[in-house]
Amino acid sequence: MMPAPDRAAAGALDAADPLAPFRARFLPHGDDVVAYLDGNSLGRPLASIADAWRDLAENQWGHRLIRSWTSGEAGAWMDLPEQVGDELAAATLGAAAGQTMIADSTTINFYKVMRAALNLRPDRRTVLIDRDNFPTDRFVVESIARELDLQIRWLTPDSAAGLTAEEVTESLDDDVAVVTASHVAYRSGYLADVPAITAAAHQAGALAVWDLCHSVGSCEIALDDWDVDFAVGCTYKFVGAGPGAPAFLYAARRHHERLDQPLWGWLGRADAFEMEQGYRPAAGIRSMMSGTPTIPGVLAVREGARVIAEAGIAAIRAKAVALTEMVVALHDEWLAPRGFTLGSPRDAAQRGGHVTISRADARELSATLIEAGVLVDFRTPDAIRIGLSPLPASFTEVWDAMAVIRDLAS
Amino acid sequence: MMPAPDRAAAGALDAADPLAPFRARFLPHGDDVVAYLDGNSLGRPLASIADAWRDLAENQWGHRLIRSWTSGEAGAWMDLPEQVGDELAAATLGAAAGQTMIADSTTINFYKVMRAALNLRPDRRTVLIDRDNFPTDRFVVESIARELDLQIRWLTPDSAAGLTAEEVTESLDDDVAVVTASHVAYRSGYLADVPAITAAAHQAGALAVWDLCHSVGSCEIALDDWDVDFAVGCTYKFVGAGPGAPAFLYAARRHHERLDQPLWGWLGRADAFEMEQGYRPAAGIRSMMSGTPTIPGVLAVREGARVIAEAGIAAIRAKAVALTEMVVALHDEWLAPRGFTLGSPRDAAQRGGHVTISRADARELSATLIEAGVLVDFRTPDAIRIGLSPLPASFTEVWDAMAVIRDLAS
Repeated sequence: MMPAPDRAAAGALDAADPLAPFRARFLPHGDDVVAYLDGNSLGRPLASIADAWRDLAENQWGHRLIRSWTSGEAGAWMDLPEQVGDELAAATLGAAAGQTMIADSTTINFYKVMRAALNLRPDRRTVLIDRDNFPTDRFVVESIARELDLQIRWLTPDSAAGLTAEEVTESLDDDVAVVTASHVAYRSGYLADVPAITAAAHQAGALAVWDLCHSVGSCEIALDDWDVDFAVGCTYKFVGAGPGAPAFLYAARRHHERLDQPLWGWLGRADAFEMEQGYRPAAGIRSMMSGTPTIPGVLAVREGARVIAEAGIAAIRAKAVALTEMVVALHDEWLAPRGFTLGSPRDAAQRGGHVTISRADARELSATLIEAGVLVDFRTPDAIRIGLSPLPASFTEVWDAMAVIRDLAS
Repeated sequence: MMPAPDRAAAGALDAADPLAPFRARFLPHGDDVVAYLDGNSLGRPLASIADAWRDLAENQWGHRLIRSWTSGEAGAWMDLPEQVGDELAAATLGAAAGQTMIADSTTINFYKVMRAALNLRPDRRTVLIDRDNFPTDRFVVESIARELDLQIRWLTPDSAAGLTAEEVTESLDDDVAVVTASHVAYRSGYLADVPAITAAAHQAGALAVWDLCHSVGSCEIALDDWDVDFAVGCTYKFVGAGPGAPAFLYAARRHHERLDQPLWGWLGRADAFEMEQGYRPAAGIRSMMSGTPTIPGVLAVREGARVIAEAGIAAIRAKAVALTEMVVALHDEWLAPRGFTLGSPRDAAQRGGHVTISRADARELSATLIEAGVLVDFRTPDAIRIGLSPLPASFTEVWDAMAVIRDLAS
């Protein structure tokens, strides 16, 4: 157990923080907010997003009108799903260009990549997924299994940790078409070993589909090096692109020749504007498009990707580790004696960007904390998630918030 | 043939136009724009949308942060898909509350309603659709037919007009599960007889799924009275909610007990935030939700719906008819002698909010017109669409634009 810092030590961490200047990039929160610890659910807005939306309304849309779909200083809207996908990929996904696009929601993208992955393993009838995965992932797998008459092999990891490569390996056989899991577990914050689980899946002839919702923008990701097949993730958490911002979708280039997803739409067709009869998929990642992407959302993702690129994901991850280490230490010193248990891994190497603490009265306590300006996130039945956003958060702010939790939970 | 007005007559129409005050609600276009005739593709921005986005960034998101999902003066984000759906339904869909939601793209929504409709007619194996329908609709039907091993019965209406109830009736039999068509044809502007075609479908035991993309916000629609089963449409044309704004989805209440669509996501589940195991659809229209809706887009739809409600869809339709009548008359006087043909119905009762004119050099001429500030829309192989947006457009602006077309097409 590491010693908990006092407030002066938290201040010293802020003074030495190379990312501290980024805090000024964000729009201010209300005066009633003591600390925002929910950036793992909805990141805070960059001021540049408000500027981008004004430029969109007044200039790109207002002045230039329809012409902005095909040209403009801010980029042709039609090209943005792939251009911003590439920017996000370079900033934080570890993916070469041409494999990532921004469009639709995580749910829709996850449906598309699961169907595409299953189409690459037509002779196999089983999907491997864990019970602790995020609801949307579980529901999409259930729906697809119903439609295609597949088996779901449910794993039940230790809920205080998450899915290990060993557990996956033990459950694989030659009927498994796809293994799917979350990089960071939404409840526990457990950081899965993506390369090991992906390698295990490949070893058994299966494909690996990853949900990066709770890791992107907070953890280091190397999709190409890790040999991931497909990935999706949202952009409104640590990427900070705003409520309901469009999700991303990654498909490894080696699969591009045989990409086949069922949500055929006009923008996923080759030569879309010829408006011809009969669907023929566009080349490459574009074939994963369906309808028209939401441009305010895509522009916000671009701002998020650019600030991550500027700060550097290694520095962001380092600060996330330092913040979560501090929270774990303060939990041990202040909260464990008050009946809390730690719901996240103690090993920083196995922990993403949030820390979960549990106590039976978590639901009521969360409401009390939010009322007091400490914005945390309750998850049934007894968990409080403390999200640590490296770019907007200070160590002192988080320290103060932990002190409020201590005082209100006594 | 009606006589073409001179410029003074166009000015007189503006002077008598009860909707003229609404023109000031829109953000200015660039000085290089003579006339914007592409509102049938991308409507112009209301100034209130720029204000809504600023309020979203600074107040709802910036100040209030995650709390805005569940509360706030501007409405709890979580409730907006249905609340704004109801506002749009009341303003211009002729639908009672609780049957409409705003989310996803037209493509995704069309996929959902087609699957839901087909699930209500499991013993029938044929979908009726016409070759002139918009590409996304055709592609979605093709994909679903491939997946479910259905037959597609393709109709080929007279391309200068559109699908008639007689053509549909002749093609119906007891294997047709769903008839789907566009209310306004995207090329010709033909306004289909929704109640007659819907009644014909019902008479044969089939369901009717309507695409309202090119009619919503421009034409009068009465989904409940017309007994429509399902409908979708986009909000970035005559509703003016901006590039890639989320689409709407209507499902008639009589089907709510048996709604079954395959894009299961966390926000379509009953008690979504309990994060439980196993998908159970939410009640009513909410079961058609999948992932998280894009809030900037939904707020923009609200602004569009409110200005339509304020202006009144009957007055909007009356001005749309007057504008298209003027364009047809000017075509006959100026353009027909120059080799153009009218690609839209002459009868205003069969015409939506745009007029299509055709000539072999349409592609090159469109580029020339756009260069000259007359923003029209080219559609292969030889069509120029002239979109008439009743709220931002003036008769004089449209008259001047037609004169530019005349002069540049000589």
